[in-house]
Amino acid sequence: MLRTVGIIGGGQLARMMIVPAIELGFEIKVLAEAEQSPAKLAATVGDYTDLQTVRDFAKTVDVVTFDHEHVPLHILETLIADGVNVQPSPKALLFAQNKLAMRKRLAELGVPIPAWAEVSSDADIDSFISAHGGVAVLKTATGGYDGKGVRVITAASDATDWLAEGKALLIEEKVNFVRELAQLSARNTSGQWSAWPVVETIQRAGVCAEVHSPAAAADHEQAAKIAEVIATGLGVTGVLAVELFETVDGKLLVNELAMRPHNSGHFTIDGSVTSQFEQHLRAVLDLPLGSTEGTSAFAVMLNLLGPETANTFAERFENAWVLENTSHIHLYGKEYRLGRKMGHITALSSDSLADARAQALATYNALLA
Amino acid sequence: MLRTVGIIGGGQLARMMIVPAIELGFEIKVLAEAEQSPAKLAATVGDYTDLQTVRDFAKTVDVVTFDHEHVPLHILETLIADGVNVQPSPKALLFAQNKLAMRKRLAELGVPIPAWAEVSSDADIDSFISAHGGVAVLKTATGGYDGKGVRVITAASDATDWLAEGKALLIEEKVNFVRELAQLSARNTSGQWSAWPVVETIQRAGVCAEVHSPAAAADHEQAAKIAEVIATGLGVTGVLAVELFETVDGKLLVNELAMRPHNSGHFTIDGSVTSQFEQHLRAVLDLPLGSTEGTSAFAVMLNLLGPETANTFAERFENAWVLENTSHIHLYGKEYRLGRKMGHITALSSDSLADARAQALATYNALLA
Repeated sequence: MLRTVGIIGGGQLARMMIVPAIELGFEIKVLAEAEQSPAKLAATVGDYTDLQTVRDFAKTVDVVTFDHEHVPLHILETLIADGVNVQPSPKALLFAQNKLAMRKRLAELGVPIPAWAEVSSDADIDSFISAHGGVAVLKTATGGYDGKGVRVITAASDATDWLAEGKALLIEEKVNFVRELAQLSARNTSGQWSAWPVVETIQRAGVCAEVHSPAAAADHEQAAKIAEVIATGLGVTGVLAVELFETVDGKLLVNELAMRPHNSGHFTIDGSVTSQFEQHLRAVLDLPLGSTEGTSAFAVMLNLLGPETANTFAERFENAWVLENTSHIHLYGKEYRLGRKMGHITALSSDSLADARAQALATYNALLA
Repeated sequence: MLRTVGIIGGGQLARMMIVPAIELGFEIKVLAEAEQSPAKLAATVGDYTDLQTVRDFAKTVDVVTFDHEHVPLHILETLIADGVNVQPSPKALLFAQNKLAMRKRLAELGVPIPAWAEVSSDADIDSFISAHGGVAVLKTATGGYDGKGVRVITAASDATDWLAEGKALLIEEKVNFVRELAQLSARNTSGQWSAWPVVETIQRAGVCAEVHSPAAAADHEQAAKIAEVIATGLGVTGVLAVELFETVDGKLLVNELAMRPHNSGHFTIDGSVTSQFEQHLRAVLDLPLGSTEGTSAFAVMLNLLGPETANTFAERFENAWVLENTSHIHLYGKEYRLGRKMGHITALSSDSLADARAQALATYNALLA
């Protein structure tokens, strides 16, 4: 019996899930938004906000999973009523789609999170701000990603438009963090759970630029425990990424969640016995999870973002490959656009993060040259 | 500029070339014989013996390469006249398609080969047999693979049918070998050449069953030298597999050639920094070749051949994955058939071939259970 995995969304995450499907002999089908998607090899084109389109797609696969978290929950609930196997379930996805629901549930579970409140008026906002040092982070409950729907504010007047639009809003303390970490793990539908080492993520202009694995001198045990409580408590299946703030006093606070393979886990393709993409397929098919051990002691990933000068990087393999370092170049087959995630580099080292980073950076510079 | 690789043939070799194409951001198109081919994700269906079909396919890609060696040379020569980039070229492929041409050319190059002769009569055959101990191997010059077109004979009367059919034939001494080796290497169109360690191949019933890398106590230098002389002398581009006999006195003799990724190199997916499939794409696109260093000191590959009891192995992942050894399972998405190459297992070890083999065997048995 060949198993068929259906992925909604045709981005690079779906593209990278095609690889383990080929290697393990699974069938794979993607519902993509456009003809020229990174996952086009396995894709049919259709609108994921149209119930009939998603229903028809679901009929052709054994399990439905996701490249992104934007599929309307009412569509997924209808699929569940139809008897479709949806992983993660809409019950869990709610917490990835709605930040208010997520904060409430994490508070119930006793997971460490920033101070927060639901707000719906100028008075609510101003009182939270004055209680938290004159500055706070305002977020729309839904619709935010990659820096959208998030605003640092110092007064309610900074949020007049969102309040006028009647958006559901939450406000959070502006955490005085020293760095950001991400804890990647996976849980299959039988409840087996497994984590990779916690990593350090470095953002530039609100976008992930670098990932260092493992995060140096981090509290790995605490990070893994937080992820396990969330995965179990929210009923997550597949890969779960927990973005964390590390504060000056070494405390970890949960920032955001993603219930799918995540940019912070791309290093696992080359740097781990089991990649996050293979693990996600195993988890949603309810197969035993694979080893999350490193293939080397250290890995550094650099995102290849569309640079100032038009460049898809594909013309520059010659420059990069003469370096003969351990860098693995991954490109997503995308047209160039400034700042776009076009691909990534992972370099490995048995010596140090600094060595892995130096190799990755040399390859990065060669691809830009 | 995105590069598009075109592969003629939709078997598991084409399937496994799709993976590095996805990872490196190349476009890939496959011309397959049937709808349900292992490479169907990237395939259109068409007859590779039909000139117009192959011509139309070639127009849509930047380079044409192969999953098998059966495309008629006159078709490829027409493509070349059309200005199509065909790698390896028909000039080189001739030596993979025609064993008489291959033996003549290897003899000219001074490469060690078994004693051989072109034969076209009972007298030719009987005289060769009596000069070589009463037994010999008769081969049709073209059309032989996986044991077809090869016959061990003791008299011309064993070959009456082939002689009557007027087939071009060659006869070779039956080499008294102690084991079989395979030397895998690759050469790009600029002439850069790179070899993996020579491996031991173990055949059962004429089909490759196991590959051990590196071959224990083998003359790696001699094997690599032979492969380099052949790759350069025959103008091979892409992956070249040289199958070798090792004789009792430690001499190496060339048995067969393949000018494409080869079963003896499947271990490179997990066991080498650069897999043979990635290297083949780099070579035919004339990009710098990647490192052929091992990811572990030892690798053992076992073929998953369709067993007596119908089993695609895909139902048995649970059995295999609870073992938690280093085995990587690869399935080709094929329907079950007795003796069919359905997939393979590669296990790695830093300790010994015996350790790698024990792991692979445990996984193999779990998939059969």
